[in-house]
Amino acid sequence: MTLSKQHIQFVRSLQLKKFRQKYNNFVVEGDKMVREILQQQHIRMASLYALPEWLDANALLLTYCNVPMHPISPAELHKISGLSTPNQVLAVADIPEPPTITSLALEGFSLYLDQIQDPGNLGTLLRIADWFGLRYVFCSPGCVDVYNPKVVQASMGAILRVPCLERNLPELTAAFPTLPICGAVLDGDNLFRTTLPQHGLIVIGNESRGIAEDTAALLTNRLTIPAPQHAGAESLNAAVAAGIIIAVLIDRA
Amino acid sequence: MTLSKQHIQFVRSLQLKKFRQKYNNFVVEGDKMVREILQQQHIRMASLYALPEWLDANALLLTYCNVPMHPISPAELHKISGLSTPNQVLAVADIPEPPTITSLALEGFSLYLDQIQDPGNLGTLLRIADWFGLRYVFCSPGCVDVYNPKVVQASMGAILRVPCLERNLPELTAAFPTLPICGAVLDGDNLFRTTLPQHGLIVIGNESRGIAEDTAALLTNRLTIPAPQHAGAESLNAAVAAGIIIAVLIDRA
Repeated sequence: MTLSKQHIQFVRSLQLKKFRQKYNNFVVEGDKMVREILQQQHIRMASLYALPEWLDANALLLTYCNVPMHPISPAELHKISGLSTPNQVLAVADIPEPPTITSLALEGFSLYLDQIQDPGNLGTLLRIADWFGLRYVFCSPGCVDVYNPKVVQASMGAILRVPCLERNLPELTAAFPTLPICGAVLDGDNLFRTTLPQHGLIVIGNESRGIAEDTAALLTNRLTIPAPQHAGAESLNAAVAAGIIIAVLIDRA
Repeated sequence: MTLSKQHIQFVRSLQLKKFRQKYNNFVVEGDKMVREILQQQHIRMASLYALPEWLDANALLLTYCNVPMHPISPAELHKISGLSTPNQVLAVADIPEPPTITSLALEGFSLYLDQIQDPGNLGTLLRIADWFGLRYVFCSPGCVDVYNPKVVQASMGAILRVPCLERNLPELTAAFPTLPICGAVLDGDNLFRTTLPQHGLIVIGNESRGIAEDTAALLTNRLTIPAPQHAGAESLNAAVAAGIIIAVLIDRA
């Protein structure tokens, strides 16, 4: 029941992207998300660290999976956890192979995230993609890493279900030249009053700078969420804007 | 150019609700929000702490306001700031008188926040209220304090514009018995396919528990944001759900 110093260092190192990429592993914490990962097909768990009472309570579920289990003490959990209040269990999982892009050109909606910086925002965007059953979430090179532990936690499990890939928008538009590209801008067409595409990409810009100029040049549908009171806020939160646009696009499609 | 220890302690104490209530003051940080507060009519600034270069750059604006100014060093700013990276200036402002409720029964939409706990979520909800020009934001007794510095910063200035009050929902429904009360629930009517009220209250539930049972009993319009893929996320982020419902309500009103 004692974790070696190297072992603790390994798990803690996964808080950093450099080591997640080196080992191809990421960390998932807490009872709910770890039980969900155990039931997933496409994400392999590499090892499990849990309080003995959690292992007992989940014995049946654990008999069906072949994963090295480490019973640990609350003090050890605290050492390997990235949470200020660790929750019973921590799993190290393999970063899955990026999905292949098959249906993008033809059906459904996908998100393209242009340099989203805040882990909480990215996690919330993954929840939106999950709720609305979006095909893919594409992250531009400057986005925060989707396997950042804060993103994983904020996604509340969505990261386990939503296919995420790193891509540049010009690559995507070159590969799928007829793909409609929607984006929220301040001077576009009223989202509720304009003709909307039946499928395509929804571009969400950086939290403070919005959609970058070279990205904006690629938009085929410039959409604005109507604000009755223009004296008010200059912008909506990126995830809120995404939620409104996606809900309306899907309702109309 | 030296702040006394008591002075530093006073400003720092405003990070806590207890002292904000005792002194009736709250803290606003950063160039953009402080300049905005200087131009506001209804929020009085009690004192201003800024780097000398900020005071120089804003000399013209400052000539029109009669507020005690304290030129401070970067080290002093760091001592009184609640931000990990302080931004040039910090203002102590008076908490404004709660607005009187006049138009609630008759027109427009207002938000009722049922025990929202996360300061970032509350700030984002205030931005939504500001963007859509909502009449009031009512916070239930268990909500995080709207003058919490993290809420103030996340609101990106919306706190300076949106009328906020602490209220219980039963009080409001007793005072305005015909007021439509909309809420997002998982088994309600499809938001896009049902008849919506032309004005009223939009109830947003706690981040993890949703709308409390006694609150849910008061809803007149139980709305659901349609999710095409029910295998996915169990819920949307509270602010995202609020944004979608408000955008559609206002479009239809």
